[in-house]
Amino acid sequence: MTNHHVTIGDFRTEAGAVIPQVDFVYRTWGTFRGDNAVLVEHTLTGDHNADEWWPGLIGPGLAIDTRQYYVICANVLGGCKGTTGPSSPHPDDGKAFGSRFPAISIRDQVEAEYAFLHAIGVDRLSAVMGGSMGGARALEWEVSHPEYIERAFVLAVSARASAWQIGIQTAQIQFIEQDPNWCGGDFYSRGVAPHDGMAAARRIAHLTYRGEQEIDERFGVDPQDKENPLGPYRDPKQRFQVQSYLDHQAEKLVARFDPGSYVALTEALNRHDVGRGRGGLIKALDSTKVPTMVAGVDTDILYPYHQQEHLARNLGNVIGMHKIVSPIGHDAFLAETRQLDRIFRNFFHV
Amino acid sequence: MTNHHVTIGDFRTEAGAVIPQVDFVYRTWGTFRGDNAVLVEHTLTGDHNADEWWPGLIGPGLAIDTRQYYVICANVLGGCKGTTGPSSPHPDDGKAFGSRFPAISIRDQVEAEYAFLHAIGVDRLSAVMGGSMGGARALEWEVSHPEYIERAFVLAVSARASAWQIGIQTAQIQFIEQDPNWCGGDFYSRGVAPHDGMAAARRIAHLTYRGEQEIDERFGVDPQDKENPLGPYRDPKQRFQVQSYLDHQAEKLVARFDPGSYVALTEALNRHDVGRGRGGLIKALDSTKVPTMVAGVDTDILYPYHQQEHLARNLGNVIGMHKIVSPIGHDAFLAETRQLDRIFRNFFHV
Repeated sequence: MTNHHVTIGDFRTEAGAVIPQVDFVYRTWGTFRGDNAVLVEHTLTGDHNADEWWPGLIGPGLAIDTRQYYVICANVLGGCKGTTGPSSPHPDDGKAFGSRFPAISIRDQVEAEYAFLHAIGVDRLSAVMGGSMGGARALEWEVSHPEYIERAFVLAVSARASAWQIGIQTAQIQFIEQDPNWCGGDFYSRGVAPHDGMAAARRIAHLTYRGEQEIDERFGVDPQDKENPLGPYRDPKQRFQVQSYLDHQAEKLVARFDPGSYVALTEALNRHDVGRGRGGLIKALDSTKVPTMVAGVDTDILYPYHQQEHLARNLGNVIGMHKIVSPIGHDAFLAETRQLDRIFRNFFHV
Repeated sequence: MTNHHVTIGDFRTEAGAVIPQVDFVYRTWGTFRGDNAVLVEHTLTGDHNADEWWPGLIGPGLAIDTRQYYVICANVLGGCKGTTGPSSPHPDDGKAFGSRFPAISIRDQVEAEYAFLHAIGVDRLSAVMGGSMGGARALEWEVSHPEYIERAFVLAVSARASAWQIGIQTAQIQFIEQDPNWCGGDFYSRGVAPHDGMAAARRIAHLTYRGEQEIDERFGVDPQDKENPLGPYRDPKQRFQVQSYLDHQAEKLVARFDPGSYVALTEALNRHDVGRGRGGLIKALDSTKVPTMVAGVDTDILYPYHQQEHLARNLGNVIGMHKIVSPIGHDAFLAETRQLDRIFRNFFHV
């Protein structure tokens, strides 16, 4: 796998801050023929290695067929895998942006990607596709730049952040910001990092990503091996199996993800609202006539299916609606490969 | 309103710890006639003032009719409103129990209540009723002491903690235990309290108590008055309205509730399992032949309705099943007075 880099120069956010010298990192699959580019959008803690997080779905003869399409996946603005984000070196002094990285919105991410695609010579998309935060970008893309896109796939997301999402997302941000090692966002040069805060955030987040019946069927009230959570006095070291599982999920994220990006991207989700400045949600959704397929997961508590029904009712040109049936909850948009395969093939052949 | 007090002496928990000199505080409504006692069980942060948290439901001529019934509501073991809990004075030294208060289970709470009722001369219950943690006790009551109870009402709860519940509840406990002011549970004499940790716990808990559609319809993405959460840089002081609402909920709880009790009672919910030591859930539920009415809330994400269906399928003698239809989520078991009125009247007249 080869990472490509390109710079888009200074970028001005929706709220009026300037991010100097924005770089993008991206990968591609297939051959560019001018009219066959498909932009695949990753999720909050995902990255540009789309073939890894959508395994079996991108490649020659697969649902997103790289014999036919030129597939592009870029690390998102604000991320930590090569595209400019809080942990990137600031051009002024080579030190991490930290608190100098502004608050960005989903719309900012899309505008930066618009500049990124032009920078690499792509002036039209055959399709844009994504789920969760990637779905928010796909939706924002087709409302911001309908003329640029032939079709859109919007998966497991909503037209704007719901109050419940803002509540649970802000709580996660607070866990990180209130960790003493956050240092106001400028922990990078101090040899510390708000790992406890990010672990707490991830444990909560993971419970919003997974279906409660699936988690219960896997772990129930079983104790972790060699631990006894039912002793005479409470002891945090004596855990139920589900606690150990959540601790493990948190450790994995801490090892691979920047807390600054976690805050920046969670904040971007808080600001997700395709209706802002466009006369409201309904008007904004109706305004785009990009043929759009919408899908969601029946057990998703983070982006409940009624939110995708709302999209399908109100988007200007819906070509199909699919319900992924799964005990997994929100994460089914990554995990249910067979259902995604069928739905994606349908998307490209409608 | 008059609070009554009674002591039940030393109490030995299921896990083998002894709590010395356990006191109960309780209230009653109506006149005791030997066979007309109804035990009403409060929830985690509730108390023995049942007529306040079930307004319009307990009184002369109301659904829980105090002309006919002698209604008893006691503060729960581990609570902070008069019954012995972590903040109570230890008989040895008059200082708060703190870390000397053992881990208790729902079953312990019920055993202590069994002793409490005998101490006040009640040797049979016409009914036991409760929702959420109160429902867990009502259920444990009818499985532990079926001979003692004429009928039971089990509302908005499950046969045992689910793994998801343990996950989200343990996260709340961790927020408190990891607050530096927790002092290992012995903060009482130090002039500090883990208020930040309990506020964080409550914000998360509240999002599990309320329906996401209801919260969204109230707050959406509106900014708090005079604040701008969409500025160029993230600022924790610039909030969405839903954040202000959650902060307010957290402040209210911090002002009225003991963090030690919050941990002890949340831990009791983690240990809720009517099947433990009884050959499993199905056998335990089937073993009780107490006529039982079950109810739940259609939008409850904390105790989803399928958990009440599980109870109704497996309890030994179900006399009715009701679904409360409400956008409010779990808290509908407190808030939907008109539906509760109809269901409770049905319960007493089946």
